[in-house]
Amino acid sequence: MVIGECSTSTAPRFFPMSRLRKDAAGILVRRLSLPRRSWASSKVQSFRTLAVRASNPLPAAVASEASAKVIDGKYVSKLIRDEVAAEVSRMKEAIGVVPGLAVVLVGERKDSATYVRNKKKACESVGINSFEVHLPEDSKEEEVVKFISGFNDDPSVHGILVQLPLPSHMNEQSILNAVSIEKDVDGFHPLNIGRLAMRGREPLFVPCTPKGCIELLHRYGISIKGKRAVVIGRSNIVGMPAALLLQREDATISIVHSRTQNAEEITREADIIIAAVGQPNMVRGSWIKPGAVIIDVGINPVEDSKSSRGYKLVGDVCYEEACKVASAITPVPGGVGPMTIAMLLSNTLTSAKRVHNFQ
Amino acid sequence: MVIGECSTSTAPRFFPMSRLRKDAAGILVRRLSLPRRSWASSKVQSFRTLAVRASNPLPAAVASEASAKVIDGKYVSKLIRDEVAAEVSRMKEAIGVVPGLAVVLVGERKDSATYVRNKKKACESVGINSFEVHLPEDSKEEEVVKFISGFNDDPSVHGILVQLPLPSHMNEQSILNAVSIEKDVDGFHPLNIGRLAMRGREPLFVPCTPKGCIELLHRYGISIKGKRAVVIGRSNIVGMPAALLLQREDATISIVHSRTQNAEEITREADIIIAAVGQPNMVRGSWIKPGAVIIDVGINPVEDSKSSRGYKLVGDVCYEEACKVASAITPVPGGVGPMTIAMLLSNTLTSAKRVHNFQ
Repeated sequence: MVIGECSTSTAPRFFPMSRLRKDAAGILVRRLSLPRRSWASSKVQSFRTLAVRASNPLPAAVASEASAKVIDGKYVSKLIRDEVAAEVSRMKEAIGVVPGLAVVLVGERKDSATYVRNKKKACESVGINSFEVHLPEDSKEEEVVKFISGFNDDPSVHGILVQLPLPSHMNEQSILNAVSIEKDVDGFHPLNIGRLAMRGREPLFVPCTPKGCIELLHRYGISIKGKRAVVIGRSNIVGMPAALLLQREDATISIVHSRTQNAEEITREADIIIAAVGQPNMVRGSWIKPGAVIIDVGINPVEDSKSSRGYKLVGDVCYEEACKVASAITPVPGGVGPMTIAMLLSNTLTSAKRVHNFQ
Repeated sequence: MVIGECSTSTAPRFFPMSRLRKDAAGILVRRLSLPRRSWASSKVQSFRTLAVRASNPLPAAVASEASAKVIDGKYVSKLIRDEVAAEVSRMKEAIGVVPGLAVVLVGERKDSATYVRNKKKACESVGINSFEVHLPEDSKEEEVVKFISGFNDDPSVHGILVQLPLPSHMNEQSILNAVSIEKDVDGFHPLNIGRLAMRGREPLFVPCTPKGCIELLHRYGISIKGKRAVVIGRSNIVGMPAALLLQREDATISIVHSRTQNAEEITREADIIIAAVGQPNMVRGSWIKPGAVIIDVGINPVEDSKSSRGYKLVGDVCYEEACKVASAITPVPGGVGPMTIAMLLSNTLTSAKRVHNFQ
C-alpha cells in the first residue's frame, strides 16, 4: 500500500488524515537531520524577508536547476524558539513570572513517551517550566480529570496538553473538555475553533500545526490575501483550522477531501496548497499550478531498503515532481514538522503574557 | 447604485453581507405574496421527494420553457411549520410541556418591531409560547443582560433571541454571550459554530438561515455528497455556517468573497451555489454551470417605477438569466426567506425536546 517513490506510485488513493499517527499537538515528525543543502539567501528575491520579525534573511535552498525554493521549517522554528526564549527571559526579569506547560500522559505508548520527552526538552531549551503527570494505562477517567483540574487551578501552569491517543476506555472528548479554555494551548476547544471561524472574533489559541503553516508563509513573505488556496484534508487538527486561518487572511479557499471527485483539477487551481491528508506522494506534479506555493504537512513512513531503518519519511506531496513546478515548497522532514512544537511554545508564552497582562 | 434589471446592470460589484439590513435570526425577507405559478409536481422527476419527511410531493414550478425548477421555500416552510405544530401538540399532550421562545427587543426601530411581531405570530401559529421584553432605546447594557439572565433561568423559555441591531451604545458581543448556550436558538454562539466546524462534534443549534438552505436541498432530494459547492459571502450568520454545513454533508466547498479575484470563474465550477452577499443580481447567467442548483439568500430592494411601493425585491442572483441555465433555483421572495423563521421554530422545539428528553 505504501508508495515509496513518486515514479513508482500507482493512481493515488485518498485517505483521511485520521490514518496518521499523531500526538495531541499534531506533531507528526521525527527529528531527523536535514540533508546538507546549499544556503542561497541571496536568491530569495521573491520572498520578502520580514525584517521586523527576523533580523537575519531567511534561507532558501534551491534543490536543483530551475526548481522551487525550499521553505525551511527547521530554520524558521529555530528563529521562533530564539524569539520565545528572549521573551521568556524578558518576562522573568520584568515581573518574575516563568511560563509553564503541563503535559498529561496516560499509559505506556513508546511514541507518546517520546513526544512528551521532546516537548519537555523544547520547554527547557527556551526557559519554559514543564510539568508532567504520567498515569498508568488502567487509570480511571476521573483521575485524569482530577489532574487536569489541578493544573487548571495552578497559576504556575499556563498551558495544558493531554497527550493523545488516550487509552481506549476513556472518553477523549470529555477529558479534553476538562482543560480550561484559558490554558488550551492546543487550540482544539470548540470555543476556540468557533472564534477562529467567525469574523470579528479572536480565538485565545490557534492550533499549533496550522498556525505553523501560516507562520511559514508569513516568514517567507508569501502573500495570502486574494490568493486561491486549496487545503487537502479536513481534519479537526490541521485541515479545517488551516482553511479557517487562510480565510481569515482573505484567501479564497477550497477544501479537498476523501469525498472530492476531482481533487487533481481543484488542486491545480491553487496558488497556495496545504496538504494534510496522510497519503504518501498523493499530490503529483500534474496537480500543481506552475508557481504555486506548497506547504506539505504529511509525514508518511514508506519502505526504503537503502535506509538502515528500512523506511524513510515522505510528505503528501511528491517532492521531486513538485519541485519542478512549484515556486516554493516545504521539505519532509524539516518543513512543517518542527514548526508545531515551536508554535506550542509560542502559545504557552502568549498564555502567560495574557494572564499577567505583560506586553 | 442599485441594479433593477439584470440586463441593465453594469459590471457587478461585490459588497459584503454586512451591508444588508437583517435581524438576529438573519431574516432578510419581507412577507410578500408569491406570484401565482403553475404547480407542476409531476415534473419533479429529478428531485426525489423525501417521503419520510413530507407525505405530499413537493411542488416545483417551471418558470418558462426549458427552464429551472423553482424551489418553493414558501411551501416547504409551511410543511415544516405544520410538522412543528404537530410535534408541539404531541409534546403538550404527552408531558404537558409547551416550548417557549423569548425575544428581547431594545429601542424603537420599526423594522425590528415588525420582525418581532412576525416571530410572535409564527410562534402562535404553531402553538409555541412567545415571551417578549421591549426595553427603551436608552437602556443600560446591564438591564438587557438582566432580562436575558431571567430568561436563562426560566424553565418555560427554551429559546432566547436578541433582536439585532442593538442601540449603538451597547456591546452586541457581550450581550449575545449572555444568552445560555442551551437556549441559543440562533446558533450564533462561537461554541455552536466551533462544534459545527468540527468533525465528530454536534452543535446544539444550527443558525436558522443556512439551516434553511440545506433543508431546501434535502426536501427537494438534491444530493450534496461529493458535489462541488460554492458559497458566495462569508458572513457569520449565513455564508460561513452554510459552508460548514455543506462540508459536513461531504460537499467540496469553495468560499467566494469580496477579496476573491475570479469569483465568476470559481462560481461556474459549482454544482450547488449558495449566494449570500447582499448584492442585487450579482450572479449572472454566465456565472452558472448548466444544471447547477441555486439557493439565493439575498433579498435586495431595487427601484421599480412599476411598483406602487417604488421598489421590488431581488436576490443576489439574476433570476431571469439563472432560470435558463440552472436546474433548480429558489425565487426571491418566497425562497430562503420563509425558511429562516420555520427553522427558528424548529430550533425552539428541538431545545424543548432536549431539555425534557422527549423523543
